[in-house]
Amino acid sequence: MKVSFQGEAGAYSEQAVFNYFGDVETVPCEAFDVMFDAVANHKSDAALAPIENSLAGSIHQNYDLLLKHNLHIVGEYFLRVRHCLIVAPGVKKTDIKKAISHPQALGQCIGYLRNHKIKPEQVYDTAGSVKLLKESGARDTAAIASRRAAELYGMEILEEGIEDNPENYTRFLAIQPEAVNPQGEAKTSIVFTLKNAPGALFKALSVFALRDIDLTKIESRPLQGTPWDYLFYVDFVGAAHEPRAQKALDHLGEYAQMLRVLGSYPRFTG
Amino acid sequence: MKVSFQGEAGAYSEQAVFNYFGDVETVPCEAFDVMFDAVANHKSDAALAPIENSLAGSIHQNYDLLLKHNLHIVGEYFLRVRHCLIVAPGVKKTDIKKAISHPQALGQCIGYLRNHKIKPEQVYDTAGSVKLLKESGARDTAAIASRRAAELYGMEILEEGIEDNPENYTRFLAIQPEAVNPQGEAKTSIVFTLKNAPGALFKALSVFALRDIDLTKIESRPLQGTPWDYLFYVDFVGAAHEPRAQKALDHLGEYAQMLRVLGSYPRFTG
Repeated sequence: MKVSFQGEAGAYSEQAVFNYFGDVETVPCEAFDVMFDAVANHKSDAALAPIENSLAGSIHQNYDLLLKHNLHIVGEYFLRVRHCLIVAPGVKKTDIKKAISHPQALGQCIGYLRNHKIKPEQVYDTAGSVKLLKESGARDTAAIASRRAAELYGMEILEEGIEDNPENYTRFLAIQPEAVNPQGEAKTSIVFTLKNAPGALFKALSVFALRDIDLTKIESRPLQGTPWDYLFYVDFVGAAHEPRAQKALDHLGEYAQMLRVLGSYPRFTG
Repeated sequence: MKVSFQGEAGAYSEQAVFNYFGDVETVPCEAFDVMFDAVANHKSDAALAPIENSLAGSIHQNYDLLLKHNLHIVGEYFLRVRHCLIVAPGVKKTDIKKAISHPQALGQCIGYLRNHKIKPEQVYDTAGSVKLLKESGARDTAAIASRRAAELYGMEILEEGIEDNPENYTRFLAIQPEAVNPQGEAKTSIVFTLKNAPGALFKALSVFALRDIDLTKIESRPLQGTPWDYLFYVDFVGAAHEPRAQKALDHLGEYAQMLRVLGSYPRFTG
């Protein structure tokens, strides 16, 4: 099985692929659209797309790509992002003067770096920082990246979990050409638009509340071309083919201008 | 007046500061928390914090920092992100073999780069890519960054607006130590948590719907430490001190476990 992800070898996304799919062949992609195209054109069997991070928010671009392609969400996975302090073999913590990584990773470890008087220096990528460190041979520098990146380049992990906020999770969606019919506890992701009118969203949410269907995500996104209209992302508990969910979706169809079911899939339970 | 922003000189955030505040002194900050600390410690008079991008989503970290500090939202600004193709003076488009920039900017121009057979190469920052280009003196390379970055480093803009999707807006919030009481058309931003129970969100939104108060944003954020509880971000039309809004907030207080008004401020009208 071939699974595409965005980033280079050793990226957190690649780690998520192995955790979720097991021992598969990974296909690194330079951009999100390349990753979706790979699945659409059957160059890979699936993709694992990050859709939201507990600190950085939702990745709207991947919702856009889900709407653009006729692909389906078939699963979800939550990765706890644990940043590692990575050095060349034998380097000690007291040798480290500076740390290189992607600006977002550095920002998430800024308290740790300050406490240890390590100067942050931005490079383009987390896994790339380990590659750069290995090539340079520097012994006063650490890279901040995933465990997988350290292993890939034969480098040493001095400390794992150096992020200031441990509540750092990324939610990934598994994307495939064929929909699944999940048995057991399921979730369904939908996208819809509403004409802007007072109480429009309240009416839309009533279709779930009146049927005791639990929502696990709701997010509005302004459509900038039409500044008073909104796109909504909703995840609810249950599969779209269950009678209760089917009735709720039919009911929502009475209010929504556009409604698309992106997929029903087994709920991740950790 | 001194206004802090996240990024280095020439960043899109700095451009937004000048557009919104006019001719002020800007204070570049390496991270979002440094930017908030600067305002809290009166090292700057205000900050302009990006809170959501139409492609990349909400920046939860800045919501966390708003909750952590006793600061107030006093205004909002929407910046249309227009990426520029920037070169050394005299370089022609046909000379360009590669383009350097932050991965997110490169990703947003990937179609343009493919069409022009320009190879993307990732560096740590948009404004930083112009600085690197200037220092290198390369004449086969372009940088992708803001108009402001090109002007700052005395470089030439060959084309403006090379992003593939023109619907690329970043919403910024102006943050100051003192709250304002906006006259005219206003918006209010609030954060609240709900105990997870069927229909909890529906009840919470009824406090606005029953009073014909329009929402302009709603977003749920799972609290990972307590996996079945949620934080909600809501923006509504009107100021918190207006009687109708005051009644809605009192009513919401009956359901919410935590409720905080982050600020009422004049609505951005372009």
